[in-house]
Amino acid sequence: MHDLHDFDFSAWAAAQGALVEQALTAWVGQGAPAGLGEAMRYAVLDGGKRLRPLLVLAAAQAVQGHAPAALRAACAVELIHAYSLVHDDMPCMDNDVLRRGKPTVHIAFGQAQALLAGDALQAQAFELLTPAGDEVPAAMQAHCCRILAHAAGAQGMAGGQAIDLASVGQPLNEEQLRQMHRLKTGALLQASVLLGAACGTTSAPALAALSTYGEVLGLAFQVVDDVLDVVADAATLGKTPGKDAANDKPTYVALLGLPAAQALAQDLLVQACAALGQSGLPQDDVQALRALAHQVVGRSH
Amino acid sequence: MHDLHDFDFSAWAAAQGALVEQALTAWVGQGAPAGLGEAMRYAVLDGGKRLRPLLVLAAAQAVQGHAPAALRAACAVELIHAYSLVHDDMPCMDNDVLRRGKPTVHIAFGQAQALLAGDALQAQAFELLTPAGDEVPAAMQAHCCRILAHAAGAQGMAGGQAIDLASVGQPLNEEQLRQMHRLKTGALLQASVLLGAACGTTSAPALAALSTYGEVLGLAFQVVDDVLDVVADAATLGKTPGKDAANDKPTYVALLGLPAAQALAQDLLVQACAALGQSGLPQDDVQALRALAHQVVGRSH
Repeated sequence: MHDLHDFDFSAWAAAQGALVEQALTAWVGQGAPAGLGEAMRYAVLDGGKRLRPLLVLAAAQAVQGHAPAALRAACAVELIHAYSLVHDDMPCMDNDVLRRGKPTVHIAFGQAQALLAGDALQAQAFELLTPAGDEVPAAMQAHCCRILAHAAGAQGMAGGQAIDLASVGQPLNEEQLRQMHRLKTGALLQASVLLGAACGTTSAPALAALSTYGEVLGLAFQVVDDVLDVVADAATLGKTPGKDAANDKPTYVALLGLPAAQALAQDLLVQACAALGQSGLPQDDVQALRALAHQVVGRSH
Repeated sequence: MHDLHDFDFSAWAAAQGALVEQALTAWVGQGAPAGLGEAMRYAVLDGGKRLRPLLVLAAAQAVQGHAPAALRAACAVELIHAYSLVHDDMPCMDNDVLRRGKPTVHIAFGQAQALLAGDALQAQAFELLTPAGDEVPAAMQAHCCRILAHAAGAQGMAGGQAIDLASVGQPLNEEQLRQMHRLKTGALLQASVLLGAACGTTSAPALAALSTYGEVLGLAFQVVDDVLDVVADAATLGKTPGKDAANDKPTYVALLGLPAAQALAQDLLVQACAALGQSGLPQDDVQALRALAHQVVGRSH
């Protein structure tokens, strides 16, 4: 077994995160009319954890992927994530006023600008994936667009949000809850891994293993999210805790109880790492993915 | 000079429109959770004029373009248009309750579902452009995504809407008004022509001529829109007329007066047709584009 002591995750994450921040700072809202560009940048350049971009870059590293393509994909998936938060926070959705410790976009810029900023961020994600010229091979551009569009749309994130919307106050069983989260948060997390993989060449078994890793990680993320909604306070979480229970939303904690939900998260971590172990990829190359799984399950916010 | 009598536009538009309706009916909201899929289909399958899809198909015809790619691009641009209407009608934007004679999506399905349906439609546009397998060459897929994402985003449609938002009650001069509309409605209309062109191979002068045609047509469309907002009634228009004036929005009619706005529309029609004449493309192949320009300027709704 490889252990994480061989790998300096903090240094890796700091270096990769800096590349992502630099690219996002340069790209987000570039060429936008003043007010719109400001709202787009406010929504993205806010000290987010950049989990999805790091997953893209870690997966790309696992397959010796094309570096410029991976950086673009990393930023694109973050724009999709950021736009979903902007729209999700709006009064007609979750009506949240606080996000990562700051006023949400519609509080800071008004609802109309928030709506447009979200829409423009989604479009820009696909712009980032499709640069003109030969910086990124066309087949890789098309493949990345296919993965991201599917994960963001009605059979992915937006579909999961619609199921979530319809499920408030409904008793869901574990399979229904799992399906909702597989779409709502899982699809984009899994897509992050698949985007990284699409920046290189992989054997079918390695791709299947990475896909499993991404799926399990996505589920683990949501289980931990539900646990943190119960155990963390607002200062740590950077958003309003206890909202799920207050809104009578189905959660893993409500369904399984806190100890079983916490045990499930640990079990999923083992499964994610097992998928990497069975991928056939050199284990040195998947260390960043392995560390990210530990990070997701061990996080406190 | 070629005249339109040689070309049966009605038959062409009926045949092409039927292909588009059939494809949209098969594709829109496919695989979506029930409520979301219903809202997506309600937003799209509503007897719209399908101007943008027809422009894509007409431009593809002008360059002997790849037929499956052109049909996908035609549907994709319509999904972007449809999503923009859904979001634009919402209470935080134009707060419109009537669209093409039907209750708007947020009236019929609620604001949250309308927001999600718009978001999912945008994602599906890019899904349609990027089918797996070899149905459409990868380079064509990437090129179409690039054109559509740019036209939909902050430097296109969403950017124009943001300028529109900021301009309510502001006196704009003709150049500022033109720039706002170039983005808000012009970018997507021009992109429709460019998408069709991207489905084939064109000389640089032909592409420039088609681009000019698309730009001029986009402007003509908006001038006619402003004229119709003043002269048409709700039954003909299928939406609430007089809203621009009531909302103190800048329009060509407000700026130029009605007769001069009508004359400008005619002048733009001449310019659009001149661009086609100078494209170097066989004039038989641009008849559908020529007829569409007449259609846009002559329309009554």
